[in-house]
Amino acid sequence: MNATPPRKLRYAMVGGGRDAFIGAVHRHAIALDGQCELVAGALSSSAQKARASGRDLFLADDRNHGDWQALLADEIKRPAHERIDFVSIVTPNHVHFPVAQAFVDAGFHVVCDKPLVHTCAQADALVAAVARQGTVFGVTYNYTGYPMVRQARAMVRAGELGEIRKVVVEYNQGWLATALEGGGNKQAGWRTDPARSGAAGAIGDIGSHAENLLATVTGLQVEHLCADLGALVPGRALDDDGSLLLRLSHGARGVLVASQINTGVENDLRLRVSGTLGSIEWRQEQPSRLKHWPADGPQRVLTRGSPWLHPAAQRASRLPAGHPEGFIEAFANVYAGVVADIRAHAQGIPADPCQADYPRVEDGARGVRFIARTVASAASGDKWTAW
Amino acid sequence: MNATPPRKLRYAMVGGGRDAFIGAVHRHAIALDGQCELVAGALSSSAQKARASGRDLFLADDRNHGDWQALLADEIKRPAHERIDFVSIVTPNHVHFPVAQAFVDAGFHVVCDKPLVHTCAQADALVAAVARQGTVFGVTYNYTGYPMVRQARAMVRAGELGEIRKVVVEYNQGWLATALEGGGNKQAGWRTDPARSGAAGAIGDIGSHAENLLATVTGLQVEHLCADLGALVPGRALDDDGSLLLRLSHGARGVLVASQINTGVENDLRLRVSGTLGSIEWRQEQPSRLKHWPADGPQRVLTRGSPWLHPAAQRASRLPAGHPEGFIEAFANVYAGVVADIRAHAQGIPADPCQADYPRVEDGARGVRFIARTVASAASGDKWTAW
Amino acid sequence: MNATPPRKLRYAMVGGGRDAFIGAVHRHAIALDGQCELVAGALSSSAQKARASGRDLFLADDRNHGDWQALLADEIKRPAHERIDFVSIVTPNHVHFPVAQAFVDAGFHVVCDKPLVHTCAQADALVAAVARQGTVFGVTYNYTGYPMVRQARAMVRAGELGEIRKVVVEYNQGWLATALEGGGNKQAGWRTDPARSGAAGAIGDIGSHAENLLATVTGLQVEHLCADLGALVPGRALDDDGSLLLRLSHGARGVLVASQINTGVENDLRLRVSGTLGSIEWRQEQPSRLKHWPADGPQRVLTRGSPWLHPAAQRASRLPAGHPEGFIEAFANVYAGVVADIRAHAQGIPADPCQADYPRVEDGARGVRFIARTVASAASGDKWTAW
Amino acid sequence: MNATPPRKLRYAMVGGGRDAFIGAVHRHAIALDGQCELVAGALSSSAQKARASGRDLFLADDRNHGDWQALLADEIKRPAHERIDFVSIVTPNHVHFPVAQAFVDAGFHVVCDKPLVHTCAQADALVAAVARQGTVFGVTYNYTGYPMVRQARAMVRAGELGEIRKVVVEYNQGWLATALEGGGNKQAGWRTDPARSGAAGAIGDIGSHAENLLATVTGLQVEHLCADLGALVPGRALDDDGSLLLRLSHGARGVLVASQINTGVENDLRLRVSGTLGSIEWRQEQPSRLKHWPADGPQRVLTRGSPWLHPAAQRASRLPAGHPEGFIEAFANVYAGVVADIRAHAQGIPADPCQADYPRVEDGARGVRFIARTVASAASGDKWTAW
Repeated sequence: MNATPPRKLRYAMVGGGRDAFIGAVHRHAIALDGQCELVAGALSSSAQKARASGRDLFLADDRNHGDWQALLADEIKRPAHERIDFVSIVTPNHVHFPVAQAFVDAGFHVVCDKPLVHTCAQADALVAAVARQGTVFGVTYNYTGYPMVRQARAMVRAGELGEIRKVVVEYNQGWLATALEGGGNKQAGWRTDPARSGAAGAIGDIGSHAENLLATVTGLQVEHLCADLGALVPGRALDDDGSLLLRLSHGARGVLVASQINTGVENDLRLRVSGTLGSIEWRQEQPSRLKHWPADGPQRVLTRGSPWLHPAAQRASRLPAGHPEGFIEAFANVYAGVVADIRAHAQGIPADPCQADYPRVEDGARGVRFIARTVASAASGDKWTAW
Repeated sequence: MNATPPRKLRYAMVGGGRDAFIGAVHRHAIALDGQCELVAGALSSSAQKARASGRDLFLADDRNHGDWQALLADEIKRPAHERIDFVSIVTPNHVHFPVAQAFVDAGFHVVCDKPLVHTCAQADALVAAVARQGTVFGVTYNYTGYPMVRQARAMVRAGELGEIRKVVVEYNQGWLATALEGGGNKQAGWRTDPARSGAAGAIGDIGSHAENLLATVTGLQVEHLCADLGALVPGRALDDDGSLLLRLSHGARGVLVASQINTGVENDLRLRVSGTLGSIEWRQEQPSRLKHWPADGPQRVLTRGSPWLHPAAQRASRLPAGHPEGFIEAFANVYAGVVADIRAHAQGIPADPCQADYPRVEDGARGVRFIARTVASAASGDKWTAW
Repeated sequence: MNATPPRKLRYAMVGGGRDAFIGAVHRHAIALDGQCELVAGALSSSAQKARASGRDLFLADDRNHGDWQALLADEIKRPAHERIDFVSIVTPNHVHFPVAQAFVDAGFHVVCDKPLVHTCAQADALVAAVARQGTVFGVTYNYTGYPMVRQARAMVRAGELGEIRKVVVEYNQGWLATALEGGGNKQAGWRTDPARSGAAGAIGDIGSHAENLLATVTGLQVEHLCADLGALVPGRALDDDGSLLLRLSHGARGVLVASQINTGVENDLRLRVSGTLGSIEWRQEQPSRLKHWPADGPQRVLTRGSPWLHPAAQRASRLPAGHPEGFIEAFANVYAGVVADIRAHAQGIPADPCQADYPRVEDGARGVRFIARTVASAASGDKWTAW
Repeated sequence: MNATPPRKLRYAMVGGGRDAFIGAVHRHAIALDGQCELVAGALSSSAQKARASGRDLFLADDRNHGDWQALLADEIKRPAHERIDFVSIVTPNHVHFPVAQAFVDAGFHVVCDKPLVHTCAQADALVAAVARQGTVFGVTYNYTGYPMVRQARAMVRAGELGEIRKVVVEYNQGWLATALEGGGNKQAGWRTDPARSGAAGAIGDIGSHAENLLATVTGLQVEHLCADLGALVPGRALDDDGSLLLRLSHGARGVLVASQINTGVENDLRLRVSGTLGSIEWRQEQPSRLKHWPADGPQRVLTRGSPWLHPAAQRASRLPAGHPEGFIEAFANVYAGVVADIRAHAQGIPADPCQADYPRVEDGARGVRFIARTVASAASGDKWTAW
């Protein structure tokens, strides 16, 4: 068997047209490693905008569709050597479920943005469908694709921090500190609209990243939570600020903060974990550094690309230390994991778990549950809401 | 009248002998400005250690007492030109109340360490006594003596941050991450002992500083709180980790974290305040910087000693910008405020509020209430405990 | 005329095969924007390795060549609709000149890595050839592709720093602190070999980046220089450490340091510029920040993606503020400039200078002169060597 | 013999009156430890201002002198139990020599600010006088009093950095970026006046601190230097910007930069040292941190107050880690060393070198030579000027 990958994977995109933000990020991330090519799309909910967007991206006319149903129908009909290997779903949240369900049911591998779907029932249905089909399903919790997050995870798993006692995770932004949604900002518009965003605002949009970061790095489960959600910008229908107390498995305590009204703050996702043997801190805005306070020596600053990192962190890096990598590379690491899994699937072999390292549909479902339980807790007068 | 101060003030110290930590800090801070001299003391609860400590500090034998009662009795008898102007109480917490009460009742000005006393009833009694006597009473919430904290307070008061929406204050340390108290560490011993420390551990020792910082800078009141306290080091009788959700006046939300089990963390008190017009962040470990994110321009880094600071910040500084000041200077600023008030009192004139800028007995009492309400909330299954 | 680009550009690569570092960086950078596709190559000086590397990259066999001469001959013969638009030269330094010269002479657009060539005579020949052919020629001084470097350049040009008085530029690394070249490290091998690297070691490899950064941001010319070069690792044939005093145009003074023996340091390129109205500092390891000290207000921290940046900086950015971009994006900005220029060229119109923003062959030639004059100064007992 | 110090030391101050900056710093620093009391002074070159300043400081009238000659005459006449133990000289530079010489000749211990004197001849005379008298003579190179500078020195001495190869020391300020001296600023006035400041401006005022830091930490000697000095603010008589290349003992290379025209920069003294086994960096504006890059592991951030520091660093610290110390404490460490030496002298025993850790008259003389050789190099067309 030839060890060299015989060809690039083919993919389609649903959503991500001209006005979108995250679709372009997905495409940049996929392009980075040269392993996949975009061959088809239904890039907008407006058929006209979808086709114009497809032309920008050099799509052939017969694979540049006005809606996702047409895309799916066309792909099903194509011969195997033309057919896409996977679809990437980058629409607003409310569209995730029908598209993902349909492509999974048709046997396609899927990558879907987060939060996965609106309800736990949808999430459970999707988990079941993926299990039934045996297909690959990745969720782009991109922040856990950063090499130093993988280093943090590896350190916890290796016991280097001892027993974890306290976790503080925050995701603060400032871009919704004013009522942008009233001024026609498309990103703000759908994110503050319950019909399109779901039952939660900030907690869904960015709190779910914080939850994923906490769960991925520490491996701890949320057992009880106590949430305070607020819509602090007058007139806003969904929360733009949330804070939670967490009771985690193994007796650990946690705090989770997600806010989009921290005026002037850019994209400040950060995690601190304290254990009996040491503490760590990671901040997304300086993603190549992981601060580590061992109990028995001075603070260390671990940096991406160093020879003393765990293999999972080393493998997730493309450039030597000191040559900054960023958001796109972390995103690309999620896709690299999906690609490795799809290639293994094509060869009929189990994927190397070190290669196929990406958030699964189950991670997406857990995130949906987190949002649901947070919203329930916020509405309750009881201190603790069980998971 | 002569504008030159005619003489140094005379003070006595109760507590702060050979093994103590904070007593020496008080003395360094008082010494810094050359405005006061230590003339008497009862420096330890052990008479022998008290006297040995007094000799270290060049106290005259007849003013070097074995207990605070003897000190007080002696001072009352001395002629005015020898008598102390104020007493500084730096004992473990449980001794604060009787000493403070006795000196206030005898008409002396008092400086007392925090947390002020063990119970709200004691705090109320002390507030009443001070009001009755008309004496000066300072509480050494030293962190609010930092120039850049005063700058933060001035910015909030001047409306530069707009309406405050979110406050996150944390005080994290790691020194109690192991059961130091079992090994004879004196500082750890009394702080983890309910009889000497009071009803709270970390929340009393450092959470009270966090509360004072929040209240001082923002001027907001805690209206409801929801606390989770834990004693995460096995066998510990008092909390070593606490997290709170806060509902503040004017609809603002808050989070307060105080933990002494963050392995490797030194003394990480930090405050973030977000308002409609801007956000700020201050960290005690880099106290000369105040980060400011105005809504309409790039981040600014305000530094101690700069000409564009508010007067209250400029006045609190002794050295030019770039010549680091620290903990001692912040502490000295509290004493400088007390000294200004005592001098005004001696002259029978109202103190200039810009000079007599220090935490009062009422601030101390509010801190005691904060501890009590936090402990009550931690024991409750209701989400919100009213202030 | 259609505003939409009608097709991707086709390019070939010379060098950059399996063991190479920088070739993959070029490919990632080119891939990022989806504007070009790799269609041909001669990827190594070993024909066998060249072909294996090409297969890794999905090159068709008939465009996967064993040497660059074959590549060139093949491209010349191909019809226009298959022929490459440009070649990217990413070989060790000593190969740059013949390849670049041959492709330019054949009328191809060229991107070449730095330092451009070994001698001023070669550089002058190349400048003349490009002028004669009227083709596009970019030099991948990638660090000046960072958005915040472009912001710095724009601030200087707009007079925001006033008259520039002092410039300090440093490029420190530690990877050559030991005699790696003796252990078979390919990167270290050619960089420390005069035959392949040229007359200079660290000054050529990284000092040339420092010179380009200084010249690009400040627009000042080096008029006199005074260099001290050392080979501090025993047995090394070329400098691994260099420091220069600079006399710049308009009376400004400068210091340039380039060293590869700073044990443990990663890739610390940094620039500080002081003018009569303000100072700035930029560091490559945190590339999204530009510190600015205006004379009349507090320090500001300008960040990539902010609305108050100059257009040249805004245009060079792909992601919102707080979503880290890095080395690849800066590299991609150089290519984006080249691509814009090639597209304009193809349309027979002058390029928009704001789009076609990239280092030219003349910048490469100036860098070669910088290296030559530095080596001359290092060998001289006179303090000042004229440019 | 009694281990307890029997009394506070008595000192006088020359200079440091109402308008002065550094005199107050000396007094704060001396006051901090409570080991000395100011009993006499000649606090200004104006007799009237001297006496007013003395009254501010609670000096008795008969020890509050109008000039230093009167102070000296009075002290010589006083009985031993009243006489000062040492004099602190904090005048502008040109007054150092006559005062220091006179007090040394009269057998007094002396602390003198830096730069010590104007000429090498004066410096040699002072060194000889001190040797003859056997008295204590400290020079307040205060920056080397910082605990983390002592840690750096200890690491170098212990071989933890291996053989030192490269040293970069910079001292940048911005306060003289405009012609302040034309506006009546007293500090700027004398520092830019050759008659009072000496042959050098920035190099004397702050370059001498940089030299002392380099020499103290590394123990290396400057063997050859190459200087470029400039007076970049129009009309200035002395250098306000200087850069030097250094050839150090044992083959090490160095760069020294001292500039007072870096607009907006506060007090940025910084040192980087690279050796075969590791590198370190220290910055005065964050003095409690020392970054360390060992060759064989990740970066470490050593902090003041940590148990793993060298004893010389631990001893120089008054507060626990995380409780910021600053400029005053570093200054106080110099005085603490002098005090320890004076107490040992009084007891007729050799001082413990770990206690009597302060810059001596020989360090001051070396600093004077550094200034002289730098000025000579700046005037020379030869690249290298021998030490």
